[in-house]
Amino acid sequence: MSAFFSPSLAAADAAASAQHYPHGALYVVATPIGNLADITLRALHVLQLCNAIACEDTRHTRQLLRAYGIDKHPEQLLALHQHNESQAARRVLALLQTGQRVAYVSDAGTPGISDPGARLVAAVTQQGLRCIPLPGASSVTTLVSVAGCSA
Amino acid sequence: MSAFFSPSLAAADAAASAQHYPHGALYVVATPIGNLADITLRALHVLQLCNAIACEDTRHTRQLLRAYGIDKHPEQLLALHQHNESQAARRVLALLQTGQRVAYVSDAGTPGISDPGARLVAAVTQQGLRCIPLPGASSVTTLVSVAGCSA
Repeated sequence: MSAFFSPSLAAADAAASAQHYPHGALYVVATPIGNLADITLRALHVLQLCNAIACEDTRHTRQLLRAYGIDKHPEQLLALHQHNESQAARRVLALLQTGQRVAYVSDAGTPGISDPGARLVAAVTQQGLRCIPLPGASSVTTLVSVAGCSA
Repeated sequence: MSAFFSPSLAAADAAASAQHYPHGALYVVATPIGNLADITLRALHVLQLCNAIACEDTRHTRQLLRAYGIDKHPEQLLALHQHNESQAARRVLALLQTGQRVAYVSDAGTPGISDPGARLVAAVTQQGLRCIPLPGASSVTTLVSVAGCSA
């Protein structure tokens, strides 16, 4: 773990653990787009709490988790990318149907915009299971926020 | 302060204080869209650090700061809304020109999308001053993330 983040997990638990986290739900978690300190307290809590994490690139996500000191077994990270999308989505659905909490993260930013997450979300909702979005960093929104364009 | 957030400010400092925060810059800070735990570590640090906060509604922002235990003098909160936009922007520019760090927050989510922040950002950049975006919650992006629409 980076020493910078050593108090963060306890702070995230204090901030977010009293809330309700349904079992059998997919948590769509936004991750930083460059600055590791751009993670929300709830995202840190959910990444700790979940039974598995579906991600675009397991190496990338493992590095991110390591920076925050979040410990997951290699089998808890499921690769979900454009070449194994259907098969990986079936694995995620199977976990959700046994009541597990699964997080989905893209390599950076808010998932489901331009990554395989959109189809995973569609598959989960088609099965009548819940998708719970955790708001956070998004490169498009961040760029617009300092573009100085009046709507 | 809410007890939930008592360890958060120290965690935010540990995570983000080693970074460089230029003086005389406007920090465009995303705030939660409903769940107080959806704040980033860097946002908490910058809201503590800044000399003033421009915001749509000072009462709303004061409540938010109080929840996190961030202490600002009433004069450090500047109202910037559609009815005083030009005058308030001039006050912000004056602060930036003396080297102060000013944050801008909307009532919820990422500023500068559908609020007076876009014109403030334009005024700041026209003066050759810096705007630094802090990525975070955005209602539009969050909704899209679980809409299940493939791009």
